[in-house]
Amino acid sequence: MVTRVAYLGPPGTFTEAAALDYAPEGLLLPYPSVASVAAAVDLGEADEGVVAIENSLEGSVTDTLDLLIHDSTLFIRRELVLVIDHCLLARPGAQLSDIKVVYSHPQALGQCRKFLGQYLPNVQIVAALSTAAAVEELQNRCDNAAAIGNLRAAEIYQMEVLIQGIQDTTNPNLTRFIVLAHSDHPVTGEDKTSFCFTFDDDRPGLLYEVMGEFARRGINMAKVESRPTRQTLGRYIFLIDVDGHREDTRVIEALEALRTQVSMIKIFGSYPRYGAASDL
Amino acid sequence: MVTRVAYLGPPGTFTEAAALDYAPEGLLLPYPSVASVAAAVDLGEADEGVVAIENSLEGSVTDTLDLLIHDSTLFIRRELVLVIDHCLLARPGAQLSDIKVVYSHPQALGQCRKFLGQYLPNVQIVAALSTAAAVEELQNRCDNAAAIGNLRAAEIYQMEVLIQGIQDTTNPNLTRFIVLAHSDHPVTGEDKTSFCFTFDDDRPGLLYEVMGEFARRGINMAKVESRPTRQTLGRYIFLIDVDGHREDTRVIEALEALRTQVSMIKIFGSYPRYGAASDL
Repeated sequence: MVTRVAYLGPPGTFTEAAALDYAPEGLLLPYPSVASVAAAVDLGEADEGVVAIENSLEGSVTDTLDLLIHDSTLFIRRELVLVIDHCLLARPGAQLSDIKVVYSHPQALGQCRKFLGQYLPNVQIVAALSTAAAVEELQNRCDNAAAIGNLRAAEIYQMEVLIQGIQDTTNPNLTRFIVLAHSDHPVTGEDKTSFCFTFDDDRPGLLYEVMGEFARRGINMAKVESRPTRQTLGRYIFLIDVDGHREDTRVIEALEALRTQVSMIKIFGSYPRYGAASDL
Repeated sequence: MVTRVAYLGPPGTFTEAAALDYAPEGLLLPYPSVASVAAAVDLGEADEGVVAIENSLEGSVTDTLDLLIHDSTLFIRRELVLVIDHCLLARPGAQLSDIKVVYSHPQALGQCRKFLGQYLPNVQIVAALSTAAAVEELQNRCDNAAAIGNLRAAEIYQMEVLIQGIQDTTNPNLTRFIVLAHSDHPVTGEDKTSFCFTFDDDRPGLLYEVMGEFARRGINMAKVESRPTRQTLGRYIFLIDVDGHREDTRVIEALEALRTQVSMIKIFGSYPRYGAASDL
């Protein structure tokens, strides 16, 4: 049976590119938001869902973190990494000097902040639901609008590439995506485990004690992030990625020790580390 | 001499409300972005600048964090906390059922995500540079547009309040602001110190060792946050708030110990903790 893969659409988004890399034989189904991708998997319209979680320039995709924390019981089954090359696209014949409005997803606008400030300091910046939706929108505009998107979107929506590679910094611009599913991934030996937790107590020094449960057992922490609990200022939910699978003895022990210290813990799943030998 | 206070304008933003609370006798100067508020202080157009740094629902204002890390040598002189009550505003006579477009700042749109999903699921959502700019923009629109902003903005731009208190959750919606200046605040005895650092090594377990320098000295950590280094995925700059002033002996010692372990450290300043006795 063909795997049905939901992704943040429309066709031409970077998420579609990641989903195509991941499931070249799959049936790709576009959805308009991170929440609706997760809902599609929840409701059985899709088997798996691909959403962005982190970019090397702009940082975490907070919609995705908040979905994992508050609004979903799905697991992370895989992680994917894609090189992101942003282009300024416009209707055929348009000139850079004519541009008055630039559309894109807020993450893409953030990743190209310096370019926009330097070359288009006086244009109006308008957020779109995805990079491809921004490019698609150009079809309906007769004013001097441009959009930030990828080469595939330029082709799909028949737009002209004004400038390629407009992201800030000359370092590769990388985005990490996760695959959401009803179960996480079996042990491969080169795994990662993602989870979040919070404390009743508002003493964030407790984070140090919790991190000690992993450090003492020689478990490397790959990421530490915080999000608001939404209760009040100064209370946080911590999101941590550690090396190892949640079925590994050391990870089991550390998570057990953690359970005695926290007021809430939610395990998002274990999955192969991107770039690990077993993944190539 | 009257203190000149730059803030994220136009008049009617929540940042203006925070600046008015902070400096009721000051000369308030609106600027269109976080970066331009900082630039106004840098260039001597203003003595101090007020910008939002964190909201209890939406989390950190990443523009402000990235400004502190990468683009400013100003210090944090104070912190301010304001209760945020969002209203849906529209031209006089408009009905909720007529609304086709909603404008606001991305933070405000994020804080009202559930309201928008439930009551206005099919409207177009458009990002604006500030909540007040979104309300001001309504004056130029003849279509069925609404904006999310505060009561003061409704009054300034003569708009009607369709619904008040539309933020997600019944918990108070709080935003923390910082005051940027050329120097931080003298010791008050109830202070906080904010700084960031990163490692050459990509082993984030090093964070645990650094946190130990503070924990061992009995210094409470009030906040831990991470932002990308912009070099590659998996390398982070950590932003930490600790209790105490950077001139306190224990804090001096911990920061000295930290300097030997990190590849970069930047101290944003020491300032009175909001709500501390000396602040009231």
